[in-house]
Amino acid sequence: MAAIRGMNAGKVLQTAIAFRQTGPRWNLLRCFAVSAQQKASMTPIGFVGLGNMGGHMAKNLLKQGYPLVIHDVYPEAITELQDLGASVADSAADVAEKTDRIVTMLPSSPNVIEAYNSATGILSTVRKGALLIDSSTIDPSVAKEVAAQAEKKGAVYMDAPVSGGVNAARDALLTFMVGGKPEEFGAAKELLQCMGKNVVNTGPVGTGQAAKICNNMMLGITMIGTSETMNLGIRLGLEPKMLAQILNTSSGRSWSSDTYNPVPGVMEGVPSANQYKGGFSTGLMTKDLGLAQNAATNTKSPTPLGSLAHQIYRIMCSKGYSLKDFSSAFQYLKEE
Amino acid sequence: MAAIRGMNAGKVLQTAIAFRQTGPRWNLLRCFAVSAQQKASMTPIGFVGLGNMGGHMAKNLLKQGYPLVIHDVYPEAITELQDLGASVADSAADVAEKTDRIVTMLPSSPNVIEAYNSATGILSTVRKGALLIDSSTIDPSVAKEVAAQAEKKGAVYMDAPVSGGVNAARDALLTFMVGGKPEEFGAAKELLQCMGKNVVNTGPVGTGQAAKICNNMMLGITMIGTSETMNLGIRLGLEPKMLAQILNTSSGRSWSSDTYNPVPGVMEGVPSANQYKGGFSTGLMTKDLGLAQNAATNTKSPTPLGSLAHQIYRIMCSKGYSLKDFSSAFQYLKEE
Amino acid sequence: MAAIRGMNAGKVLQTAIAFRQTGPRWNLLRCFAVSAQQKASMTPIGFVGLGNMGGHMAKNLLKQGYPLVIHDVYPEAITELQDLGASVADSAADVAEKTDRIVTMLPSSPNVIEAYNSATGILSTVRKGALLIDSSTIDPSVAKEVAAQAEKKGAVYMDAPVSGGVNAARDALLTFMVGGKPEEFGAAKELLQCMGKNVVNTGPVGTGQAAKICNNMMLGITMIGTSETMNLGIRLGLEPKMLAQILNTSSGRSWSSDTYNPVPGVMEGVPSANQYKGGFSTGLMTKDLGLAQNAATNTKSPTPLGSLAHQIYRIMCSKGYSLKDFSSAFQYLKEE
Amino acid sequence: MAAIRGMNAGKVLQTAIAFRQTGPRWNLLRCFAVSAQQKASMTPIGFVGLGNMGGHMAKNLLKQGYPLVIHDVYPEAITELQDLGASVADSAADVAEKTDRIVTMLPSSPNVIEAYNSATGILSTVRKGALLIDSSTIDPSVAKEVAAQAEKKGAVYMDAPVSGGVNAARDALLTFMVGGKPEEFGAAKELLQCMGKNVVNTGPVGTGQAAKICNNMMLGITMIGTSETMNLGIRLGLEPKMLAQILNTSSGRSWSSDTYNPVPGVMEGVPSANQYKGGFSTGLMTKDLGLAQNAATNTKSPTPLGSLAHQIYRIMCSKGYSLKDFSSAFQYLKEE
Repeated sequence: MAAIRGMNAGKVLQTAIAFRQTGPRWNLLRCFAVSAQQKASMTPIGFVGLGNMGGHMAKNLLKQGYPLVIHDVYPEAITELQDLGASVADSAADVAEKTDRIVTMLPSSPNVIEAYNSATGILSTVRKGALLIDSSTIDPSVAKEVAAQAEKKGAVYMDAPVSGGVNAARDALLTFMVGGKPEEFGAAKELLQCMGKNVVNTGPVGTGQAAKICNNMMLGITMIGTSETMNLGIRLGLEPKMLAQILNTSSGRSWSSDTYNPVPGVMEGVPSANQYKGGFSTGLMTKDLGLAQNAATNTKSPTPLGSLAHQIYRIMCSKGYSLKDFSSAFQYLKEE
Repeated sequence: MAAIRGMNAGKVLQTAIAFRQTGPRWNLLRCFAVSAQQKASMTPIGFVGLGNMGGHMAKNLLKQGYPLVIHDVYPEAITELQDLGASVADSAADVAEKTDRIVTMLPSSPNVIEAYNSATGILSTVRKGALLIDSSTIDPSVAKEVAAQAEKKGAVYMDAPVSGGVNAARDALLTFMVGGKPEEFGAAKELLQCMGKNVVNTGPVGTGQAAKICNNMMLGITMIGTSETMNLGIRLGLEPKMLAQILNTSSGRSWSSDTYNPVPGVMEGVPSANQYKGGFSTGLMTKDLGLAQNAATNTKSPTPLGSLAHQIYRIMCSKGYSLKDFSSAFQYLKEE
Repeated sequence: MAAIRGMNAGKVLQTAIAFRQTGPRWNLLRCFAVSAQQKASMTPIGFVGLGNMGGHMAKNLLKQGYPLVIHDVYPEAITELQDLGASVADSAADVAEKTDRIVTMLPSSPNVIEAYNSATGILSTVRKGALLIDSSTIDPSVAKEVAAQAEKKGAVYMDAPVSGGVNAARDALLTFMVGGKPEEFGAAKELLQCMGKNVVNTGPVGTGQAAKICNNMMLGITMIGTSETMNLGIRLGLEPKMLAQILNTSSGRSWSSDTYNPVPGVMEGVPSANQYKGGFSTGLMTKDLGLAQNAATNTKSPTPLGSLAHQIYRIMCSKGYSLKDFSSAFQYLKEE
Repeated sequence: MAAIRGMNAGKVLQTAIAFRQTGPRWNLLRCFAVSAQQKASMTPIGFVGLGNMGGHMAKNLLKQGYPLVIHDVYPEAITELQDLGASVADSAADVAEKTDRIVTMLPSSPNVIEAYNSATGILSTVRKGALLIDSSTIDPSVAKEVAAQAEKKGAVYMDAPVSGGVNAARDALLTFMVGGKPEEFGAAKELLQCMGKNVVNTGPVGTGQAAKICNNMMLGITMIGTSETMNLGIRLGLEPKMLAQILNTSSGRSWSSDTYNPVPGVMEGVPSANQYKGGFSTGLMTKDLGLAQNAATNTKSPTPLGSLAHQIYRIMCSKGYSLKDFSSAFQYLKEE
């Protein structure tokens, strides 16, 4: 690390990329390199929505030296960040008066519409040329609508939903799927790289949401599929680790079976090894699957498995699985 | 390769394994090494069932120097192998009289029951201590039944269904999932290693079938799931290669999207790049999914997605997709 | 009928009800009786949306002697009614200036929002105390929203979606499921009874839509279920009429099998006896099933069969079945 | 009734039919009429399988004056009938030696195969010309196989599965769906009419089973569909009885909603009004749906809704609903 300190910012960046190094330390360096190259952009960043995810994301921006102006409808969320030096705004509109780059991280479409379009929302005071990065997971058509309204005010709205969960938010290892014009992507990437590991420009605005819900629909399908498959195999006499190994070295392979196996005892360090605590909840997966179904209906796309996965997770929600990790589908199907 | 020629068989084997080398040439060496170590076992092998898969498998045994005694109800299948030196038997019983190691490769449970249990079947003349390796894909309970009947005759029956398709059969790159006792597995492995790359002892007899149908149920689910997901993403404005890349570097990853993507133009060298010709047909996938559903019903295992995948492939069969590769599910869902 | 002519209006009404007589002639009498009792209410009725359904419905109001003020974005729809004496308005707002009872019959939620809320929409000029009857089939939450906005203007909006199809619209045999307060229902019923046979107050505003989409979700399920069942039975050797008779006299009975059987040759006078022409199209059924899914997602209600029925009809739409009657599900499943 | 006593048997029969009278008393008369016309046929009837259903059915035969020779693997089942005058046989073979008309009522295919084909089974001693009526619900292909084997012995096997449940068995109100030749149907009908109300010749042997499983697949679909629909409507603000009334007078009508509504409070005298006790259990429905799926797979018939209904009932079985009436699907879907 000492050797690196002597390097200039550009070389640090190249080194980080060349060796494909990751992890919090390297991310820190990468950000350091980026921000060293771009000292001019340490102007305050606005941040609206400081929940489980937003709180960690805002902290990572602070760590990179970005002053923050924050707002959340729940005051408790604010205290910790205030102690770390963030200033507090009264409303989203107040945030937009004081900053020209804003990140929002809210639970759903209505919250986003509220935060942007209400009388005390961002668009009521937003400055021309402002950059608005929305990391909420919402309907792609809502994202496109807000983008259109932002454009009328001369601001740029980009959808940048995340993948990775609370731990990845804390460790700045999120994946951001960003929709917006390439020429505007660079500025967004500067900020997002301090909160995440992969930052991808998926296409025009709205496609970030599209990529996110497509990924999560596929994930819901492979998790329930893996749960069914493991349960069937076990009842047919296969030992769980053997079956997982076969799937993972054959055409039955998926992230759900090789990185997040839902059967207790097959892998360590995943929720199935810890009574399905933590992780990505069934409730949140169900919400994302509902968004996928709405998008499918709106585009007349047939999604039979995605639709059934949505129904199964919905039933699980009503049976007490809402707060368990979504890999608890195995427990749900197996349980007798 | 010259260096290798000087090595003894054992060292060849160790070298092959150490460098994790694969491919036809290395497989040839590996077999050479195995058979060099075991010169005693070049007695004739029986082979019943010489279709698309069995024909290639039998050829690979011949290449390794094993004399073959073959039988098939269709005479045409036999000609090529006869020319390569195989002797022809009149019936399965005839094969069993002349060999004490037999491989069967038949389309379905009734064919297997016929080949083993009929008046002119293998078990009518099988010798004590004979090794019967059945690579057909059938119901696990049928495999267990035949094994029980073989045991009464003092013979050993092991289920060893394959994964990999016709090309892998031709290139001796199949995966064998073998059910049977560990002490009998070694003898089976010797033969199977000349026809395949991965040979795994999955557990007691019947578990080879179990592993195969579990893998293929998961595969049917991920292929339809990937097809739905890609189609939805495209209609939401995502460029196909971008979407595939996102899935493949995120939690939506599966073999169906990163090794066999069903969308034309996303990958080369897969059926979607060739009008869905070749590969693993929809008809065969449907058959395997039906076996999975029977097994699920018999073990009272809930398999909602597997059951729906089966229905979708069944509908595709009646719409002219039977002979197309099973990744044509994308074309089926997308088509307007 | 001569005997009836001498009766007073009240007695005609009682007679019609007592003998549970239906049919166009009796409906005419019933309306005659109703309107004779309520001569005061022959003020002009507004009608917006004169398509396949609305055109017939408007005609039936004219027949009952109600003057009409009509509007449609498509001029062709208007001509025939103009010839029958209706006056034409320039816009929905224009209709609302000239009438204080308005019926709307539009294809979907966006059209309804446009017709009511736009600058030239009904609510821009609506009079206090006006009665707005919306027979479009839309999302219940949209209906409730428009009702709330109408209330702000002092008008009453009731959702009154229909069941019965084009023939029932023509013959004034529709079923209306009306949401709104009982005290306002009477006024609505007066008009609706001239267009339909069953007029039911389902509950508060929004419940008319709820009843409609629930009914149609169940209908989609029974139609596909009946199609699957008939197809399976035929393949198991049952003669179609025999199987239908068994279902219809047993617990497998449903409207789809005893009144609208999808198998050609089982019943006369239904679309399956006429190459699936006419009736209620697959496209419209798919739309209603999509509304049901949205409502299910919004209320977190698990609807696995309804969701799968939606997917199957959606796939049928992309295979050329959009304009065929929805009972063509049998043809779709059976076809080889 | 006195007037009837004076009538001859033939006229009693005609009267019963003419007025479409049903109920235990009329059934008794009808049987009386039939048996009076056919005094010759009061030879002993064999009955194998005296469980929940068979016990009642056997009792009704005794009531009609038929001597019985009974057998069951469980001795407890036999005691009551013994007290009523039945003689006990040691085995199914013993029954077949002593009678030339036998009724079997067994839980599943393996039991039927055992009772007919084992060394101590019916076919080991069956007399030429014997009539074998099998009221078990089994796979149609198994029924056809047993029929073929019976034919080799010169006996006639007919499949005659029932519908109606334990109460209908007790009250001789069952529906029999009989597969077999018309010329043999008459003899079967004589016996079956003393145990049931509807006796239908569905077609050749095997079609009785086909009709039964088709009916029950449709029933499983309408019951889950009705449960989903009622639950959705209730959450959208509809009062349950109102919604049921709408469905039942509209195209959403089915036996499940108008005769066996699953929502507590909507109807009296059905399991939903009695904590889902009694009736037709979820476990039995699941078994029948599994038979339907096997038959669908064997005939390559696409049954997406039937297959999903099977999965849902299977999941319910593992959640403690096995012994509840199958209309408990409403409780399962609604429960939070």
